Amino acid sequence: MGVVVRNIRRTERSIVDAFAGFGVATIHEAQGRTGLMDVRLRPVYSGAYLYGTAVTVSVPPADNWMIHVAVEQCREGDVLVVAPTSPSDAGYFGDLLATSLRSRGVRGLVIDAGCRDVAELARMRFPVWSRCVSATGTVKETLGDVNVPIVCAGQLVRPGDVIVADDDGVVVVPRGAAPELIDAAKQREKREAVSRARYEAGELSLDVNDMRERLASKGLRYVDQVTEY
Amino acid sequence: MGVVVRNIRRTERSIVDAFAGFGVATIHEAQGRTGLMDVRLRPVYSGAYLYGTAVTVSVPPADNWMIHVAVEQCREGDVLVVAPTSPSDAGYFGDLLATSLRSRGVRGLVIDAGCRDVAELARMRFPVWSRCVSATGTVKETLGDVNVPIVCAGQLVRPGDVIVADDDGVVVVPRGAAPELIDAAKQREKREAVSRARYEAGELSLDVNDMRERLASKGLRYVDQVTEY
Amino acid sequence: MGVVVRNIRRTERSIVDAFAGFGVATIHEAQGRTGLMDVRLRPVYSGAYLYGTAVTVSVPPADNWMIHVAVEQCREGDVLVVAPTSPSDAGYFGDLLATSLRSRGVRGLVIDAGCRDVAELARMRFPVWSRCVSATGTVKETLGDVNVPIVCAGQLVRPGDVIVADDDGVVVVPRGAAPELIDAAKQREKREAVSRARYEAGELSLDVNDMRERLASKGLRYVDQVTEY
Amino acid sequence: MGVVVRNIRRTERSIVDAFAGFGVATIHEAQGRTGLMDVRLRPVYSGAYLYGTAVTVSVPPADNWMIHVAVEQCREGDVLVVAPTSPSDAGYFGDLLATSLRSRGVRGLVIDAGCRDVAELARMRFPVWSRCVSATGTVKETLGDVNVPIVCAGQLVRPGDVIVADDDGVVVVPRGAAPELIDAAKQREKREAVSRARYEAGELSLDVNDMRERLASKGLRYVDQVTEY
Amino acid sequence: MGVVVRNIRRTERSIVDAFAGFGVATIHEAQGRTGLMDVRLRPVYSGAYLYGTAVTVSVPPADNWMIHVAVEQCREGDVLVVAPTSPSDAGYFGDLLATSLRSRGVRGLVIDAGCRDVAELARMRFPVWSRCVSATGTVKETLGDVNVPIVCAGQLVRPGDVIVADDDGVVVVPRGAAPELIDAAKQREKREAVSRARYEAGELSLDVNDMRERLASKGLRYVDQVTEY
Amino acid sequence: MGVVVRNIRRTERSIVDAFAGFGVATIHEAQGRTGLMDVRLRPVYSGAYLYGTAVTVSVPPADNWMIHVAVEQCREGDVLVVAPTSPSDAGYFGDLLATSLRSRGVRGLVIDAGCRDVAELARMRFPVWSRCVSATGTVKETLGDVNVPIVCAGQLVRPGDVIVADDDGVVVVPRGAAPELIDAAKQREKREAVSRARYEAGELSLDVNDMRERLASKGLRYVDQVTEY
Repeated sequence: MGVVVRNIRRTERSIVDAFAGFGVATIHEAQGRTGLMDVRLRPVYSGAYLYGTAVTVSVPPADNWMIHVAVEQCREGDVLVVAPTSPSDAGYFGDLLATSLRSRGVRGLVIDAGCRDVAELARMRFPVWSRCVSATGTVKETLGDVNVPIVCAGQLVRPGDVIVADDDGVVVVPRGAAPELIDAAKQREKREAVSRARYEAGELSLDVNDMRERLASKGLRYVDQVTEY
Repeated sequence: MGVVVRNIRRTERSIVDAFAGFGVATIHEAQGRTGLMDVRLRPVYSGAYLYGTAVTVSVPPADNWMIHVAVEQCREGDVLVVAPTSPSDAGYFGDLLATSLRSRGVRGLVIDAGCRDVAELARMRFPVWSRCVSATGTVKETLGDVNVPIVCAGQLVRPGDVIVADDDGVVVVPRGAAPELIDAAKQREKREAVSRARYEAGELSLDVNDMRERLASKGLRYVDQVTEY
Repeated sequence: MGVVVRNIRRTERSIVDAFAGFGVATIHEAQGRTGLMDVRLRPVYSGAYLYGTAVTVSVPPADNWMIHVAVEQCREGDVLVVAPTSPSDAGYFGDLLATSLRSRGVRGLVIDAGCRDVAELARMRFPVWSRCVSATGTVKETLGDVNVPIVCAGQLVRPGDVIVADDDGVVVVPRGAAPELIDAAKQREKREAVSRARYEAGELSLDVNDMRERLASKGLRYVDQVTEY
Repeated sequence: MGVVVRNIRRTERSIVDAFAGFGVATIHEAQGRTGLMDVRLRPVYSGAYLYGTAVTVSVPPADNWMIHVAVEQCREGDVLVVAPTSPSDAGYFGDLLATSLRSRGVRGLVIDAGCRDVAELARMRFPVWSRCVSATGTVKETLGDVNVPIVCAGQLVRPGDVIVADDDGVVVVPRGAAPELIDAAKQREKREAVSRARYEAGELSLDVNDMRERLASKGLRYVDQVTEY
Repeated sequence: MGVVVRNIRRTERSIVDAFAGFGVATIHEAQGRTGLMDVRLRPVYSGAYLYGTAVTVSVPPADNWMIHVAVEQCREGDVLVVAPTSPSDAGYFGDLLATSLRSRGVRGLVIDAGCRDVAELARMRFPVWSRCVSATGTVKETLGDVNVPIVCAGQLVRPGDVIVADDDGVVVVPRGAAPELIDAAKQREKREAVSRARYEAGELSLDVNDMRERLASKGLRYVDQVTEY
Repeated sequence: MGVVVRNIRRTERSIVDAFAGFGVATIHEAQGRTGLMDVRLRPVYSGAYLYGTAVTVSVPPADNWMIHVAVEQCREGDVLVVAPTSPSDAGYFGDLLATSLRSRGVRGLVIDAGCRDVAELARMRFPVWSRCVSATGTVKETLGDVNVPIVCAGQLVRPGDVIVADDDGVVVVPRGAAPELIDAAKQREKREAVSRARYEAGELSLDVNDMRERLASKGLRYVDQVTEY
């Protein structure tokens, strides 16, 4: 512990930019249903959205010192991703750190712990996904690490990976997988647009996606109601 | 498993329509404090409200195939009520299924599992009450049942029962009990309106509801503060 | 059980008034990181805020009778603080009680149990912090106590203590500690304003708070990325 | 509320007796993976086991009066099944009620709430499955119902249904389904005995159950490790 | 913070000794159903039991330094009671500290956090009630307090109070209330012995406790089963 | 998905054997307080212990097909480590799979999901650490992966890593770090043996570990009790 890795290899800017607008569910599906963080991570205000490159921080329980250290390693387009080494509900992050991160162009925070000053964060439109809202103060006594691989809310995150987050949650895309994912996500959105139009017109997914035969072969039976409740 | 019941006996339309505007707490009280689903079911946006007739779906964990099957059984005024056969946080439902349901006049969804695309659902004003928000994808591999009695969030729901849901939660009214419930709910609202007016005027519920004597008989004592904290 | 303490010694009005505008995190920190209730208490609408003097209520599980008793002991500037003697998710409180409390000038409710009619409470802008939203009705059968010291969401609250609550949670300030706390909170806000300005200008907390030397003495090392992920 | 149903139709004794020795997992599988109560119900001591006919009790939160009422409706071979109308962790049941039930030949208790005197219950070998261990006392103020259909830990239980419980949890078998279930359970046990013998001899389930072809058709690929971790 | 109170006033030895053998449920009831800690505190082995005088410790999250400080303040007959200032699952306590406490005659530990080395603690028969079992290490960086009033698992504990703990949980008896409680507990045990004998003889609590009339007056009705399930 | 990696590089046998007898807390501390899985993983019987090399399995929710696939990849001295791709409480594993694994010399199972047949597993002394006990059946419909890196209960596990588990939980040691860890663990045990002897003799950790000066420098104050509670 006590290591800060500088000059990490971030996913290339042009690739990251191509993630703009994609939702978490789309990315998660396009990636073969992987990369989704635990549902306990929730945005601190509705309509929060971001995409960017991960700067990772491993912090001791109830000690936010390393977040201060990590700020210096951030640059425009980054997302801070913070995981405690054992579960903690403490309030590691508030509007002062958000102010500092924003001045460096950081787009938001993902933290598997608590966050505070949420009314102010909402006013600033600085998006945060956290495990809980908690005003509990933290200390600055013990070292952790910046920009090493971490497990955050059940997912492995490496520095430079792509993070996408919205009202549905947070998904991580490994740096190496990012380029090919964009096409998959675009394809998926196109297919969904077609389906949406057909559903709006009253068609059923049973027909749009040709499910009837396979359902029948599994033994699905249709009966009329006989029991009287 | 693998049964779809068609032509269910829904609560009569004129009776269902009489539920319009009643809140969940009122219905729950008028019904003798029964029928309330577990508090873990929360609306995906504030101000969500619906009343309608239940189309029930029993789904395997993390498999949403039967929801697609159920859409066809829905008609105007219905509410889809979905319960997994074992607990699941997966994201069974998103904006595409909502589009399909809306085109059939379905009023909303109650699901004891996860839901996704919640930003889009809020934009559509398609109300959903779910156990959590989760982008986790589901498979389409295993059959379940449509329109059989299910237990959803601790309550028995039979096809055709009345469902009312608002920011306070979800309540189910058995089809047979619905007609007489309307009067009870109206009475309750009237009584509450009277009480509200008296409280606004500064009267105490101790007096409005005549509680003082019974409290005294139980032994309630009034003392002045003596301990100095 | 069954005691109502009248004429409690409230924190002096001029002192309470000085708390106006301070956030929960600020008070919690100024108080040496004490007094914060458990993070399970959440406001029923965003932007809720209050400060005032505690009227305490100890209630049996799923029985709200004593809240009715407590209303009479409240006066302008009070906050009702309610804790069940064993954990309960029942909906002890709704818009009727809120109407009654408001007519007496009570500023809000803090309850380590459930609350209902939350859409109406939001419309009234009557702030409530609760453990959950629950329409479950309660009975009026068993006595509890009003204005005795209680433990609410992990914190000891004595009648007359100062309560501050916002989107971050709820903090209690003992009556005796309130006067000196105001200065500490003001100092803290001033310091934070200075830091905020420097962070906005791009300075790092590492420098603003002189952390580098202590970090180095603990063994913090900076390295360049060598592993290729 | 306030109804006690007498002279319920229990599953026939000879059929109930045939359940002796079957485990919960076996019954649950033989029944098409239905009937299992939520995993939060745990036995208060290891090695607890029972099978018998349900006498059902619907109780208010933190009020155990109706359990006292229910004792009188029990007879040899019964199992008391208790569910609160809203979630409660209170300690509804202890060694005195166990003594009373035992004197009537009742085989144990299933309760979706708390239980106490667990050291004494273990000494008595009176098996209880509960949501938690809790010494919290309850009151005797509000009526509930005995021998009406209830939902207990997510499952519908009707008076007279068969209950089987062991270290794996609790399963309910509807009275009407009990007779045919016994054969299904026996078949399952036989098949498992054969499989067990083959596994002990070193055979793989891939071969015993002929899975290889279907796995391949789904696209399963075997590769040698190339990445060096 | 950072205060160690020496020479606390413990409940008198002869009074504490009179608690020997009483269970938690008995004490909790004899005390008017107060004093019970949250059910999340569980013994690390079955059959654990203790009674003694509280030495209290307020610890920072994931920092066990103050437990080391507290050992020196303990003497024969004490029970260490530890609460973190914000929730923590870390493993604050293991067999080394247990060895040290035992050498001073301390009877056990109650901690609203994690505990480790539980296999060794069971072998030593050193009883611990904890929130969870966790091997997570703690640091020794931040001060807390010894022998100040704390809130532990929802209950106020003052140094010198009586603690009783068994398989049902943990109860605290204020020092001032201890003397009179012993008689109440004895009375309760006597009454329960009489009831137990009558229940064993087949009498019903409905008769033993004369409940029938009050049940009838509340409206309890007995009916024979008519619905055929 | 759908990949089975054969011929993984396991930690060398002689190194794995050197872990025999070390507890989880010792390994976790010797490793700089890393590698510990979430405390939700608990052994299904007391006194369970194992050490061995990980064969990893990534499974879909409520689908245990890949465990059957993984058995073939196991050999003497292995430990099966299973994580679902989204949270699941289903009962993936029972005594039949345990029989099969045992016949191959596998030492136990670690699974971040449910396990069943726990009474039989205890009789077999086949150790399992799981998230819950659950009889819920699983399907065999969807592929996962065997012997790819997984995140299990918050920790990254790679095939061939060392797993140690006991009553305190589960810890993972990366294959590359295993050799040097043994010495660290031995040193730690030696130091602890010395401390234990001194504590048994009545010495205080304050003195044994020389804490008094640093405590004083942090501001620790000793006072005599003055408040009378």
